[in-house]
Amino acid sequence: MYKNQYDTDVTVWSPQGRLHQVEYAMKAVQLGSVCLGLRSEGHVVIAAVKKQTAELASYSRKLQKIEERVAIGVSGLTSDARSLAKFMRTECLNHRYVYGSCIQVGRLVNDVADKHQRCTQSYVRRPYGVGLLVASCDSTGPRLFQTDPSGNYYEHYAHSIGARSQAARTYLEKHYESFPGCTKEQLVEHAIKALAGCMAGDEEITAKCTEIGVIGLNEDYNMLSEADIQSYLDRIEVAAGGAGEEKGGDDDDDDAMDAEDVGAV
Amino acid sequence: MYKNQYDTDVTVWSPQGRLHQVEYAMKAVQLGSVCLGLRSEGHVVIAAVKKQTAELASYSRKLQKIEERVAIGVSGLTSDARSLAKFMRTECLNHRYVYGSCIQVGRLVNDVADKHQRCTQSYVRRPYGVGLLVASCDSTGPRLFQTDPSGNYYEHYAHSIGARSQAARTYLEKHYESFPGCTKEQLVEHAIKALAGCMAGDEEITAKCTEIGVIGLNEDYNMLSEADIQSYLDRIEVAAGGAGEEKGGDDDDDDAMDAEDVGAV
Amino acid sequence: MYKNQYDTDVTVWSPQGRLHQVEYAMKAVQLGSVCLGLRSEGHVVIAAVKKQTAELASYSRKLQKIEERVAIGVSGLTSDARSLAKFMRTECLNHRYVYGSCIQVGRLVNDVADKHQRCTQSYVRRPYGVGLLVASCDSTGPRLFQTDPSGNYYEHYAHSIGARSQAARTYLEKHYESFPGCTKEQLVEHAIKALAGCMAGDEEITAKCTEIGVIGLNEDYNMLSEADIQSYLDRIEVAAGGAGEEKGGDDDDDDAMDAEDVGAV
Amino acid sequence: MYKNQYDTDVTVWSPQGRLHQVEYAMKAVQLGSVCLGLRSEGHVVIAAVKKQTAELASYSRKLQKIEERVAIGVSGLTSDARSLAKFMRTECLNHRYVYGSCIQVGRLVNDVADKHQRCTQSYVRRPYGVGLLVASCDSTGPRLFQTDPSGNYYEHYAHSIGARSQAARTYLEKHYESFPGCTKEQLVEHAIKALAGCMAGDEEITAKCTEIGVIGLNEDYNMLSEADIQSYLDRIEVAAGGAGEEKGGDDDDDDAMDAEDVGAV
Amino acid sequence: MYKNQYDTDVTVWSPQGRLHQVEYAMKAVQLGSVCLGLRSEGHVVIAAVKKQTAELASYSRKLQKIEERVAIGVSGLTSDARSLAKFMRTECLNHRYVYGSCIQVGRLVNDVADKHQRCTQSYVRRPYGVGLLVASCDSTGPRLFQTDPSGNYYEHYAHSIGARSQAARTYLEKHYESFPGCTKEQLVEHAIKALAGCMAGDEEITAKCTEIGVIGLNEDYNMLSEADIQSYLDRIEVAAGGAGEEKGGDDDDDDAMDAEDVGAV
Amino acid sequence: MYKNQYDTDVTVWSPQGRLHQVEYAMKAVQLGSVCLGLRSEGHVVIAAVKKQTAELASYSRKLQKIEERVAIGVSGLTSDARSLAKFMRTECLNHRYVYGSCIQVGRLVNDVADKHQRCTQSYVRRPYGVGLLVASCDSTGPRLFQTDPSGNYYEHYAHSIGARSQAARTYLEKHYESFPGCTKEQLVEHAIKALAGCMAGDEEITAKCTEIGVIGLNEDYNMLSEADIQSYLDRIEVAAGGAGEEKGGDDDDDDAMDAEDVGAV
Amino acid sequence: MYKNQYDTDVTVWSPQGRLHQVEYAMKAVQLGSVCLGLRSEGHVVIAAVKKQTAELASYSRKLQKIEERVAIGVSGLTSDARSLAKFMRTECLNHRYVYGSCIQVGRLVNDVADKHQRCTQSYVRRPYGVGLLVASCDSTGPRLFQTDPSGNYYEHYAHSIGARSQAARTYLEKHYESFPGCTKEQLVEHAIKALAGCMAGDEEITAKCTEIGVIGLNEDYNMLSEADIQSYLDRIEVAAGGAGEEKGGDDDDDDAMDAEDVGAV
Repeated sequence: MYKNQYDTDVTVWSPQGRLHQVEYAMKAVQLGSVCLGLRSEGHVVIAAVKKQTAELASYSRKLQKIEERVAIGVSGLTSDARSLAKFMRTECLNHRYVYGSCIQVGRLVNDVADKHQRCTQSYVRRPYGVGLLVASCDSTGPRLFQTDPSGNYYEHYAHSIGARSQAARTYLEKHYESFPGCTKEQLVEHAIKALAGCMAGDEEITAKCTEIGVIGLNEDYNMLSEADIQSYLDRIEVAAGGAGEEKGGDDDDDDAMDAEDVGAV
Repeated sequence: MYKNQYDTDVTVWSPQGRLHQVEYAMKAVQLGSVCLGLRSEGHVVIAAVKKQTAELASYSRKLQKIEERVAIGVSGLTSDARSLAKFMRTECLNHRYVYGSCIQVGRLVNDVADKHQRCTQSYVRRPYGVGLLVASCDSTGPRLFQTDPSGNYYEHYAHSIGARSQAARTYLEKHYESFPGCTKEQLVEHAIKALAGCMAGDEEITAKCTEIGVIGLNEDYNMLSEADIQSYLDRIEVAAGGAGEEKGGDDDDDDAMDAEDVGAV
Repeated sequence: MYKNQYDTDVTVWSPQGRLHQVEYAMKAVQLGSVCLGLRSEGHVVIAAVKKQTAELASYSRKLQKIEERVAIGVSGLTSDARSLAKFMRTECLNHRYVYGSCIQVGRLVNDVADKHQRCTQSYVRRPYGVGLLVASCDSTGPRLFQTDPSGNYYEHYAHSIGARSQAARTYLEKHYESFPGCTKEQLVEHAIKALAGCMAGDEEITAKCTEIGVIGLNEDYNMLSEADIQSYLDRIEVAAGGAGEEKGGDDDDDDAMDAEDVGAV
Repeated sequence: MYKNQYDTDVTVWSPQGRLHQVEYAMKAVQLGSVCLGLRSEGHVVIAAVKKQTAELASYSRKLQKIEERVAIGVSGLTSDARSLAKFMRTECLNHRYVYGSCIQVGRLVNDVADKHQRCTQSYVRRPYGVGLLVASCDSTGPRLFQTDPSGNYYEHYAHSIGARSQAARTYLEKHYESFPGCTKEQLVEHAIKALAGCMAGDEEITAKCTEIGVIGLNEDYNMLSEADIQSYLDRIEVAAGGAGEEKGGDDDDDDAMDAEDVGAV
Repeated sequence: MYKNQYDTDVTVWSPQGRLHQVEYAMKAVQLGSVCLGLRSEGHVVIAAVKKQTAELASYSRKLQKIEERVAIGVSGLTSDARSLAKFMRTECLNHRYVYGSCIQVGRLVNDVADKHQRCTQSYVRRPYGVGLLVASCDSTGPRLFQTDPSGNYYEHYAHSIGARSQAARTYLEKHYESFPGCTKEQLVEHAIKALAGCMAGDEEITAKCTEIGVIGLNEDYNMLSEADIQSYLDRIEVAAGGAGEEKGGDDDDDDAMDAEDVGAV
Repeated sequence: MYKNQYDTDVTVWSPQGRLHQVEYAMKAVQLGSVCLGLRSEGHVVIAAVKKQTAELASYSRKLQKIEERVAIGVSGLTSDARSLAKFMRTECLNHRYVYGSCIQVGRLVNDVADKHQRCTQSYVRRPYGVGLLVASCDSTGPRLFQTDPSGNYYEHYAHSIGARSQAARTYLEKHYESFPGCTKEQLVEHAIKALAGCMAGDEEITAKCTEIGVIGLNEDYNMLSEADIQSYLDRIEVAAGGAGEEKGGDDDDDDAMDAEDVGAV
Repeated sequence: MYKNQYDTDVTVWSPQGRLHQVEYAMKAVQLGSVCLGLRSEGHVVIAAVKKQTAELASYSRKLQKIEERVAIGVSGLTSDARSLAKFMRTECLNHRYVYGSCIQVGRLVNDVADKHQRCTQSYVRRPYGVGLLVASCDSTGPRLFQTDPSGNYYEHYAHSIGARSQAARTYLEKHYESFPGCTKEQLVEHAIKALAGCMAGDEEITAKCTEIGVIGLNEDYNMLSEADIQSYLDRIEVAAGGAGEEKGGDDDDDDAMDAEDVGAV
């Protein structure tokens, strides 16, 4: 009840010292379909489940390339994500123009997070309703960052965001210790298995609805083709229905369905 | 009930992470009459049912030419659509002035969607109450995009928007597999049949109330004359009353009637 | 009941996808006295019933000349109409200054409608509370447009707006087929008969309270004198009390009376 | 009851298509004391009843000169009237500076009305709470205009505004037909008799509380001295107590009393 | 009850055509201690009762010099008064700089009143909460004006403002007829007697709490010293306790006490 | 009850002619610890009780130097005080830069008060929540001013502000008559005794929690060291526990405790 | 109850003279994990407990370097802290650019506090939701400051902020007297013991979750490595479980848990 008094304006503090509007915007991230990232010593992989708004529509893409070795996966409002991706590309271009080299990914993530933060302190704009996973390989090796609507960002060894992403996190935490030494192929397999656990009750993971991107120490960002993904799926299938048992519960299906209506990916 | 607390300002998030004002604006698209698009390997066709606000009024046009090979079909508030069409024409002119060529349709759609998105993040303007189907043929072949008030856009093989558009989508999904190899004439016939299914209970599709535009790989945008449409109608009639059985239910008649009052087309 | 939540701000969408404030502004048009237009192949006529706010006041004029061959009839808030007329005259002057010729009426109407639309998308101004009938003759022949507070505009063969205008529309629709071949005099007679049907219960149409303007293919805008109108009235009277039977019901008298208080014409 | 929802902001339309705030501002005009104008073929006379806010205060003047042959009478908020009078004088000066001649009174009234209108369309300013009678003689002869807070203006043969002005209007309508041929003196007598009918129950018209101004075809604006007015009063008195019987009812006394508190004249 | 709907914003009209916020601001004038002015044919005198916010505080001055022959007495919010006095001094300096002479007091008062008025028409500022008595002697002789928060101003022969000022007005009206021929000394005596009647129940008028200023036809503004005032008080005392009987009732004591808390003088 | 309607916006007048928000801001001054000033013919002394927000924190300073011979003591929000002190130092610097001399303290206080006043007339900023005692010695001798959130300022012979300051005022009023002839040492003793009476029930005045500053006719502002204050305390102690009996009641202890939480000093 | 009326806008005073929104923002500081500082005559140490938002996430850093000899520890909203740290670094750079030396830490803290204060006086921005401990060594020796959302700042000998920081303050106050003579190593040990008391019920202090930074008279800011911290922990462990007994109660666990959701560190 008391909540209602303090949760309609982003510049209003609740008596408990919270900004409810920012917390609500973070809910929008959970309405998007799952997106995850993980890294070994030589590669970083981001993967996501794509959605289709209509039967004859192309799938909405969840991964976007920012620079040769920087890519993002998004969960939440697509149009807000597009606006942030545009901002990141401009930052990269400006840096390259001035310094002749790629911007450090840590700095880029910091700039995006500052952009998030400014929207939480002034009443003229709402907080962005999208979370990003930023994957990159630079001289410091593979990196994986996450930003959210509050303006915070975190570095992760492996992480997942979006609807039913808890199932993926459980998988990643369980197999985490083997990641550092993984080959690119092994990382991708882990990504697929983790995604598989996040499908809604009656859905199967398919090559069509899956997006996977890889960046390596000496490899520019590369998205796997549908055929590549299919061959991975086939191999995993053969190995066993092992991913299946980690499938998340169906209890939040309804939220995920609603999300399509509001343009969350 | 709880909804009312969060749905009167576009910059306010609901506790569920939704922007209700954006969702309401998307309802305005459904108040317009039906508009659809479909494409083969060589052509893209857009078609719509026009409305007449008074018996002696000319029909409100639903299709608008943007460039030689770009055209849009609209559903929702006409005056908002006009404002967006003007913006698109200016973008095209600017691009042509600077680069001497037509803007890529993907980029143009992206710009329009960004314009939509900005209206969802600031409280000074309301979201646009209109959806667009953007048809184009360029070096990448026939393309069909859809934009909506949330700032999202999607590419489609075939799609329909507006009142009772579900009936058209059902038709399109059923016959979709034959589209790629269709001739221009076959595409137009499919468009008419799909439209026919969307007429309200006691209305018949006529040449007068139908608008059809075609763009081909080597053909600029061309609108069919009333006579052309009539001859199509005659041919289909002869073939059979086949489209009739797919006619949508009358249950949303009332909405469609109201829509005329508020200037939705 | 639920309406009240969404109808006090022009930038707020209702859950049904409607902008109530725009719809309310359109009600203001219906508070003005009747104004109508009709066209033949060679002429366009606009006519209106004038009101007198006090017994010794001059009648408020409902028709205004914009250019040699462009004139408007208004219904709704007079002062808003004056503001729009001023805008239209400026547009015409600017066009004439730059291009040395009269602006195309279609373009002029489009500009006015865009001005209407802008007032529906920002909270700093209210929508205009006036509807216009724009009559013109240019190289494309006689034209008749209508604009309304939502920012829409329509072309008509014949149309009427304002209080009890339904009676006039009924008359116009009934005799419509004979209009194209009419002489100027016949058009004016039709206009008078249509107006006569819109008088409130106990009022008679008189030369004093009637304004009639004519534009022809080779005739600049010309307002009929009181004497001219009287002679038309006399002729019609002689022919029969034929218009009388189409007089509109008195049921909306009260609205029309109130309208005088708020400056609607 | 329902009114309250739509009447606190000037930019909000009521569901009936009315702007309640504008209507309320027009009530302020009726709180001022009476002011009237009438014209013959050679002269225009404006007259008003002045009020005194305290026994030892000078009377608040109701008539103001704008130019040699333009004067206004006001009813409503004095300070708003002063602001408008200042605007009118500046307009006149500007016109005289640019064109070397006096501005046409019709145009001047139009400009003032536009100033009124702008205050009814934006929420940053309230509508002016004052009505004006504008009297003038130019090449087109004697003219009498009225403006009000809605931004409308009307031309009149004779008119009155302010508290109990209905009594004056009744007198003017009764004697109207004789006005055109009246001499200046006869016009002034009519003005005094009409004013006399508007005095509150227990008040008598006196030279002290009356202001009368005259403009003629070849006479600049001239205010009658107290002595002049007294001699008129004496003459009328002798003729008979004829004006008395038209005195307005006392029923709106209370409003008029309150008005003094809020600075209405 | 109904009042509350229209009285919290200065730009909102009540259904009765009143601006309640302006009326409330006028109440602030009545919370200040009494201030009065009166004039003969050769002099104008302003006088006021000063207040002390603490026992060891100096008295707040109520009279302020603007120019050699212009002075003001204030009642209401001191800080608002200071802001207006500053404005008046700047106006005087500017006029003197441009024209080399003192500004006419009528024009100066008009400028101040316009400043008041602007605060009543825009929502960004509140109306000033102070009333001024402006005393001056120029070529037109002694003058006495009053301004109030509504933006009105009045000229007076004698007037008083502030708490219990009715008692002073009663005195002034009673003796008014003798003022024109008074000497400076007689005017001052009248001022003191009028002030004496406004003291709260248990207070006596003293030289310490009284401020008196005089301007004459050939005398610059001059404030009486405490000794001067004492000698006047002694003389009056001797003559009789005559002023005492006109002392105002105590019924509004409480308001006056509260006023000290809010900085009204 | 009715209060709530008019007390949430600084630009809204209550029906009684009060600005409640300004009055509330003045309450913040009373939440700070006590601060006082007093003057003789040759010196002015300001003194205050400092507070410690945590056991290991340094004491918050209550006295601040503005210029060689100008210092302030504050009570209320520290951060607001800092903002005003910064403004005063800038004013002094500017004056010194332009005129080569120190600004007159009366003028400086007037400028600060104007800054206060502006915050009470516009809704974009809240009134400052701090009161100042301004002490100075210039050619006119020792001066002591007080400013408050309403924009008023007063000159005092001796004054105290802040929590329980009434006890100090009582002391100062009792001994006031002896102040003019006091030596610097005697003034300081009076200041300490007055402060002692304002300590909360179970607190003792100590050198640590006391700040004392002195300005003399030929002495720049000088703050007493802790050792100096201790020796004064010792001397007074010896003389007797005389200050004790004037200690203020404990009844407002709670307010003072709360004040620490909100940053009032 | 009454609170709700005055606590949703930072520019609104409560009737008690408080700014509730500022107080609520200070609650956000208490939602962050504990951060503390303490100083000897030669060193200043800041230490904090880091949090991990997910099992595979890196720890959020709580200490940040500003200049060679200036560092901050933060508690509250991370993104707000980042914004303030950026501001401080810019201030330092600007000072170094203009004067060639490091800014005095007292001045730097003052600037940050002014930035806090501005957010409490205007309604366009919310107060920052973060508290800072600023540690520095300059020519004046080791310094430790604290800032908070109200715009206040305090200097401390030792202090702690954040969730359960009271336990640390209790420890610091108990051992305070020995700090001045401590070696760097002893200070660090005290810091660790104080932190240990603030761990939630079932958590143990570990090298992983602890951040410790040291600045000395001749030592630039240096963060202890995980190994260093571990060796400290081992030594303390050996000495005894002495810190354990000061562990804070678990009663505010829930708040601390919630805090992670809203991005407080």
